[in-house]
Order: sequence, then C-alpha cells, then structure tokens
Amino acid sequence: MAVVQADLVKHLVAVVGAPNVLTGDAVKEEYTHDEVLTAAPVVPAAVVLPASTDEVAAVLRYADSEGVPVTARGTGTGMSGACIPQPDGIVVSFERMNHILEIDRENSIAVVEPGVQLDQLDAALAPLGLVYPVFPGEYSASLGGNVSTNAGGMRAVKYGVTRHQVLGLEAVLPSGEVIQCGGKVIKLSTGYDLTQLVIGSEGTLALVTKAYLKLYPRAPHGATVLAPFTTLDEVTNAVPKVVASGVGPLILEYIDMLTLAAMSSQLGLELGIPDDVKERAFAYLVVGLEDTHLDRLEEDTHTVASLMSELGAIDVYVLPPAAATSLIEAREKAFWIAKANGADDIIDVVVPRASVPEFMQRVGEIASANGAWIAGCGHAGDGNVHMAVFQKDDEARQRIMTALFRTGMELGGAISGEHGLGRAKNKYFLELEDPAKIALMRRIKAAFDPNGILNPGTIFDRSG
Amino acid sequence: MAVVQADLVKHLVAVVGAPNVLTGDAVKEEYTHDEVLTAAPVVPAAVVLPASTDEVAAVLRYADSEGVPVTARGTGTGMSGACIPQPDGIVVSFERMNHILEIDRENSIAVVEPGVQLDQLDAALAPLGLVYPVFPGEYSASLGGNVSTNAGGMRAVKYGVTRHQVLGLEAVLPSGEVIQCGGKVIKLSTGYDLTQLVIGSEGTLALVTKAYLKLYPRAPHGATVLAPFTTLDEVTNAVPKVVASGVGPLILEYIDMLTLAAMSSQLGLELGIPDDVKERAFAYLVVGLEDTHLDRLEEDTHTVASLMSELGAIDVYVLPPAAATSLIEAREKAFWIAKANGADDIIDVVVPRASVPEFMQRVGEIASANGAWIAGCGHAGDGNVHMAVFQKDDEARQRIMTALFRTGMELGGAISGEHGLGRAKNKYFLELEDPAKIALMRRIKAAFDPNGILNPGTIFDRSG
Repeated sequence: MAVVQADLVKHLVAVVGAPNVLTGDAVKEEYTHDEVLTAAPVVPAAVVLPASTDEVAAVLRYADSEGVPVTARGTGTGMSGACIPQPDGIVVSFERMNHILEIDRENSIAVVEPGVQLDQLDAALAPLGLVYPVFPGEYSASLGGNVSTNAGGMRAVKYGVTRHQVLGLEAVLPSGEVIQCGGKVIKLSTGYDLTQLVIGSEGTLALVTKAYLKLYPRAPHGATVLAPFTTLDEVTNAVPKVVASGVGPLILEYIDMLTLAAMSSQLGLELGIPDDVKERAFAYLVVGLEDTHLDRLEEDTHTVASLMSELGAIDVYVLPPAAATSLIEAREKAFWIAKANGADDIIDVVVPRASVPEFMQRVGEIASANGAWIAGCGHAGDGNVHMAVFQKDDEARQRIMTALFRTGMELGGAISGEHGLGRAKNKYFLELEDPAKIALMRRIKAAFDPNGILNPGTIFDRSG
Repeated sequence: MAVVQADLVKHLVAVVGAPNVLTGDAVKEEYTHDEVLTAAPVVPAAVVLPASTDEVAAVLRYADSEGVPVTARGTGTGMSGACIPQPDGIVVSFERMNHILEIDRENSIAVVEPGVQLDQLDAALAPLGLVYPVFPGEYSASLGGNVSTNAGGMRAVKYGVTRHQVLGLEAVLPSGEVIQCGGKVIKLSTGYDLTQLVIGSEGTLALVTKAYLKLYPRAPHGATVLAPFTTLDEVTNAVPKVVASGVGPLILEYIDMLTLAAMSSQLGLELGIPDDVKERAFAYLVVGLEDTHLDRLEEDTHTVASLMSELGAIDVYVLPPAAATSLIEAREKAFWIAKANGADDIIDVVVPRASVPEFMQRVGEIASANGAWIAGCGHAGDGNVHMAVFQKDDEARQRIMTALFRTGMELGGAISGEHGLGRAKNKYFLELEDPAKIALMRRIKAAFDPNGILNPGTIFDRSG
C-alpha cells in the first residue's frame, strides 16, 4: 500500500468536504490514542469526520480499493487501544454523527448514531421516565464505542451487557455495502445474527452507523447497601446468596481496602465508617437496588442488610443518597486513581463469579512471586475483576499479565470481560487462546474484510 | 459425492458401534421430518447416535472428508424443516447425549448436552427453586434444537430468547475441531462472539455438543389476567402501556376470537366468559405476571386489571390458577389446533410491537385479496405474530406467504421471530432479503464449513 498523502486527502475531501479532513498539525493529539496504559499513540495520515452513512460508505470503498487502514473512533474512552490508528491509515471519527435519531416510546427503543454519548442519551431519556441500562464507568463514552467493545459496567448483573441491549445495527462493510441487521424487534431467527457478531468486534468487521437500543422504564427509587467484611472470601461468598435471594440486585461490586482507602484519600470520599471498622475491613461489598415502588425497595433493602449480617459483615450501612452517589462515582473513577498512583497496567479478567475467591488467591500468589502490587475492585456479581498491576519492569509485568490471564482462563474465564483486546491484550490472546478458535475468527474476519483494512493491529495482528 | 452406503456404515460403526448406526428399515419415520407443514420427509442414508463430543467430532471429520451431508437432530419439534436430512446424508441424532452435566447453583448456570429436553431440565430445576426461563410451546423440545433455532416462546417479553440465556457452547466444526466458546461467564469481550453466531444458525455452522444456560430464581407466585377487547387495535395498543407500567410482565399474548373459539371447542377450554362478552370480543389480551412476593403480585395484578379497564376492555378476568394453566396450555397448542383444522402453512413473522396493528390490517387485506383465511394468536409483547394460512392452492399460498413476509419486512421486521428458516422459509428469505447480507452470510458459512456438509438445503440453498 502506497497511497500518496495528497491523493488520499483529495479523495477524502471529495467525500466529506475539506473542513472535515484533518491532516498534519490539525490532527489533534487526542486522535492518536485512547485511555490504554500500554500502547503508544500513533499519528494517522488523516482524520475524516463523516456526517452520514453514505459518506462512511464512500470513505470505506476508497480505502478498501487502495488498501488504506481504517480505524473507527468514538470519544476515545476505550481501555485497550482499539482506536489507535495506523501511521499510513485513516481515523474515521464519528463526532459529527452524534444524533439521537429517534426515541420510540411505543416500542421502547432508541435509534442513535454512533457518536451519541451515554450522558447525552441519558439526559434525553430521563425526562421520559426511560433508561438505557448499560452504564460503564465513563459516561462520555460513545454508543458506537460501547457497541464495538461490548461495554459492560456495574449494572450488568441485572441488565446484562451491551450485546443484550442492542437489537439491531446499520453497518458499513469495507466494500461500501450498507447492511441493516435486526432493528426494532426483540427476537429474530432469520439467518445468522450479524448484529451480535459485529458487537464486540472492535471495529475489525464493519463500521457501525446506527444502533437500535432497548429501553426500560426508569425505576424512580434506589438504595445502596455497603457491607465491610474481614476477608475477600466472605465478600465473594455473599454474592451468590444475594442473587439467589430474588431481590434482583442492580449493582453487586466489591472494593478492596486499598482501593477504598485511595478513594477516600484522593477523592475525599467520606462514608462515615468508624475507624475501628475500617481497620478490620479487608474488603467491601456494595449492593445497589432499584424499584418502581418505594415500599418494595425498602423491604428488599432490609432483606439485603439482614443477609449481609448473617453472612458475617462487620457492620452494614444503608447509605444516604448523597453518600451512595459519591461511592458509585468514586468506584467509577477507580481506573483514574490507579493511574494517578502509577499503575503500569490493568486487567479486567472475567471468571465464573463463584471462582472469584480462587482467582483472587492466585492473584496474590502471582503478585508476591513477581514482586508486584496488584489491587483493585470489581463486578463481583458477574465475576469481572478489575485490577491495577504495579510493576515497572516490562518483562516481569508481561510475565505477570500472562499468568493472570492464564489463571482466569483455567478457571473457565477469559482475558477481558468488557474492555476488549485492542492493541493491549491481543498478544496475550494470540498466545493463550485455542488456535482453532483464532483461525476461525480470522476466517470470519476475511468474510467481512478480505483486504484487512479495518483496524489492523488489533485482536489478531494482521501479519500473524 | 458418491460414498458407497457400505463404506459409510462401516466408518460410522467404527466410531459409535453398530447398535448406534441405523440404516434401511431401522430408520424410523420420525427421523425423516420435524413438524413443518410444507416440506416433504426425506429418508437419510444413515442415522448415527453419538454418545460423546469425541464421537461427534469423528463423525464430522469423516463426513467432511467424504463430502457427506450432515443434519443435526434434537427431538424433531422444529417448525421449519431444519432437521430434514439429505437422501445421501447422515442424521446426527442427539438422543443419547441427553445428560444434564451440571447444575451450578453458585453461578446460577446449568451445563447440558444437546439432547436434554426442556421438560427434563425443568423437572431438575424446580426442586432447587431455579428456572431456565425460555419456554417455547413444546416442552419436549431439546436444548440443542432450541439453541439452533434461537427459540423464543411466551416468556420472551420478560426474559428474552434463547440467545439471551445461553452463555457458552461447546461445538464441533466440520473439520472435527472442538471449540469452547464462552462458558460460565455473563460478560465477555475477548474476540468474536462465536456462541452468538452459532445460536440460531440451524445446524449450518457447527454441531453443538454442550450448552451453558443461565438460571434464575424461580418465582413462586403467578397470576394471569385475561381481557377481551372489541378490536385487535385496542389489544395491540394496550401492549406498550403494560410494558411502560413497570410491572415487568412475564407473558403478553393476544389470541383472536377464531383461535379462542377453536381452543374452546376442540380442547374443551372453559374460562367462564359469558356468551354476550364472547360475542362482542374480537381479540383477547393475556397478561401473565410472576413474583417472589405474593403481596407484590396482587398489587401488580390489580394495576394490570385497572389498566385493561381504562384501555377499553369489555371486561377483565383474573383467572384462577387451573383456568390460567388451561389457557396457557391451550395457547401452546395453537399450532396443533390450526393443523387439525387443515392449516396449509404457518408464519411467525416478527415486527416492532407497535406495528402489529398495521401488520394485522395488511394481513386482512392480503387474505381477502387472495381468497384465504388467516387466523392466529401471537406474542404481542414482542411483535411475534403466529398465524395459520388456509389456502389449498400452492401458487396462491406462496403469493400470500411472500406478501406477508414482504409486509413484515417493510414494517421493520423479519420473516421469522423464533421458528427459523429451515427448508420452509428459505426460498422467501433468498427472494426478499438484501443480497449483500445473504452473500455475507454465505461467506461466514464458508468460514465454518468450507465443504458445505452441514445441513445443506436450509437457510441458503447449497446450489445458490
């Protein structure tokens, strides 16, 4: 591939107009990376800002014919480097395709362009008493990005993840063909489910230009129970009991003492927990509940609080709304705290939720065997463990990461529950995953993208 | 392909043993078809009954090397002919792989072999206070079959369909490679979601040998509200209101007067509805509720009943448990009633639920324009319309079917919500679906099954 820069720009300008093609100094630094800690920023040959599906199709047709790499970009909040471009490639930034096309109340479905942000959608839905229930920690994330990584977040224990809430997509293939998959329907058995295949494919199969999202009645009442325990085992053992109780928790998170201490000291989080409790607490379980009826919420809150006591909690706190909000916001900032403290890498391994205690024990062993600190918090309800790894030495750190992923996979889990592989975790994936599955995925990739223009360098190395 | 029958049998016997290879008169009639009305039974060259994943892999390796068609079979309860074999092909019947391998209460997951039946699983889960919430009408259906068609059923309005409840699969590729996709984890962003791709692929991509199913606490209390309305429009307009009320209905079905009358006369269904109400009722809405708390159930039942009155129901009946069970069982037998009455074909078109009134109006126009009767019932909560078409003339009937599917697609829906395409609806799919999507699906098919041995004749014609 050797498209001359001037030719590239000329063709892109013909599609989207000169103001919407950025090159040279006009390519702001933010287009060169996302929030990943371990992959270097890359300046692309050009950034293109399409305003319509037709423009996306024209860009892809051109890129495919010339073999120009294409990297899709939402708002750059990803954690795995999946929107880091190629130096000779194009970034397709969806910032102009940021319209909520429709909020269909009769069908309880929102139709959005990929550049719509979660906070933007939530602001539009709240006055209507509706909610799109996928809340990954960062609300400036785009829906297109959420679809591409199959974003999860704290409410997955109740509502599942992005793939459970996206009923259809409009997507553009590298050929420029625009396909409509699914739509405003809850069920579908009409050929292969292309929607589900594109979700979580990190921009390697097609570019999403429209998403159909399932909406729910917005529960007006919420409560948060915080329970400190003396061991992490007690916390993780409590999780299946909460699920089995039938209260249908919205949030089921654990936070270890290091992370809660960092939240307190660095974010000023103050929950009113007495010092003697703090000293004995090794880990905290956070149970969030929501309901349309206040009396039911109160009854369920009481059920959860009693259960925590029975299961050995040092104490149980039903947090006032302001404190609950602060705690959840602090929890969502866990990554930033870890980053500020010098974390060298992060993981979001997922294991069966009953295997979290064993995983955590082995994490401790891996950490001490390799002279590293590993601390974190996680979605206890769905076995998705978020940890920060503190180890400056590259070789040692990669050994640790490999051991952590291998351990998660041995326990029946996987490398990533919600962040994706991108450029940060793909090398571990290629090392640890079944070669037959990788080969099959490569063949699927070729079925969509025979010339390999979409997001090379991620998931599978193109060269591999 | 021209494998001599004796060679075929010899190779299969070497894999599974002589008692587990059926040929000639030993191939019972049931192996030649499912419940589809419009595709002819086919006697296969052999039926093979593997007992393990290894045996399935060995059968597939042999078939792939010799180009022998392979059709997977559960219990033959499908509605689209997806398990009708090829005359020179093998049926892989999963009747011996019928073990519930594990009920993991800590993770709320069941691991089953594909031949496990829904009623068998439910009998094992009920004493544990758990439920697998996908209830298509026929409980002798196998889980493998449910996975292959992405089965739905009446509870989809609350729990979604099979694809929302299957967290992982073990599957065998035509190459004999065994892949493990997903597992006991609720979320996953680690490469393409092969689980979701195999679900609903009607045995054309891989043979499923193990499924990981999500379980829920079994709600001990249930209630059923039946509301007759004078028009179908009123019924379908009531549906979004019930959803928006926040009661979280388990079941939201409509039944038209013809179908309810047939249920009454042919199944002896007696709901105690006065004759003057029956005479005025054009359609009925059935709302099912469940809860862990009896008081909440009663409150929600009252909410629904009041809502029905406000929305113009002629009357509202909260059915006693026995009558409710009879009604739901009768509803599940709607297909058999239609068949007994001489129905010539059936549809399960899905449209956005708010488009059901328009769809039904156009169904009426299509019926009268073509001299046909079309009657039915359906999953109003998710826009999945089940209708029986009465028209003996093949050409006229195919014209009607094409018009019905085209109408559903124009309204943003699809040919099948839960039955699949199989051999019955594939010709309409190939005629009406976007050629770019069909071509993409064919390329995906080739990525799994390059020699086209898996279930030829379904979804896409092999020759096409």
